Amino acid sequence: MTDARPLEDFGPTDAMVADVFQRDCTSRQLLEAVTGRWGVLTVVGLRDGAVRFNALRRRIDGVSEKMLAQTLQTLERDGVVVREVRATIPPHVEYSLTALGRRVADDLTRLIDVLEGATVEVAASQRAYDARRDA
Amino acid sequence: MTDARPLEDFGPTDAMVADVFQRDCTSRQLLEAVTGRWGVLTVVGLRDGAVRFNALRRRIDGVSEKMLAQTLQTLERDGVVVREVRATIPPHVEYSLTALGRRVADDLTRLIDVLEGATVEVAASQRAYDARRDA
Repeated sequence: MTDARPLEDFGPTDAMVADVFQRDCTSRQLLEAVTGRWGVLTVVGLRDGAVRFNALRRRIDGVSEKMLAQTLQTLERDGVVVREVRATIPPHVEYSLTALGRRVADDLTRLIDVLEGATVEVAASQRAYDARRDA
Repeated sequence: MTDARPLEDFGPTDAMVADVFQRDCTSRQLLEAVTGRWGVLTVVGLRDGAVRFNALRRRIDGVSEKMLAQTLQTLERDGVVVREVRATIPPHVEYSLTALGRRVADDLTRLIDVLEGATVEVAASQRAYDARRDA
């Protein structure tokens, strides 16, 4: 016990602090799932309630069937999305958000509002950057 | 002028509404830049002020020199990051956030707080999912 800190100062958080900057942290994997190429649009696309696979796919312009299925599977495994089979005739599958998923969707929606409000400014920045490069 | 809407009902927003769900929208490209594999960590890593390339690279565990350089270049072009050469001896290059970058960083930080607080819950969900698959 030569460590400078008394034992009682080592709490459970010493070993358990989550840090997205560390590549092996669960929170980093989760960050990559909800911000990956299709993760953001999938989570935000489910924000207004349960949606069927094909309806979600139509909304997310450019996503392939395979990529959307993979994205939904990862998000389901991480506890962000719930997959439910409805006992209709014929039966159909719906996806919705968990409580965690709704919190993530709220934060992502706020981010998207900022980005959608910045398109004119961003396009101007891109033109100026390209002009400097070409000069 | 056989369109059902009178001309004055067509405002500038008819052509200019930004929508991240549309693949060609500037906001979608911007979303991919700030949420791409390294975009989030780069933006958030600059949140506390100007940082040099190597310091940023050390902080973002797992990023290669090439990927960080590419990420910073895209973010600079989009007007999220500023690159400045300091006239020190020897001169050095620092990166910092623009006003838009700071707003993006604030939203991403809120998201990361949610994710870092959810690691125990997410790990439990992953174990349960894998157990169902193996059953």
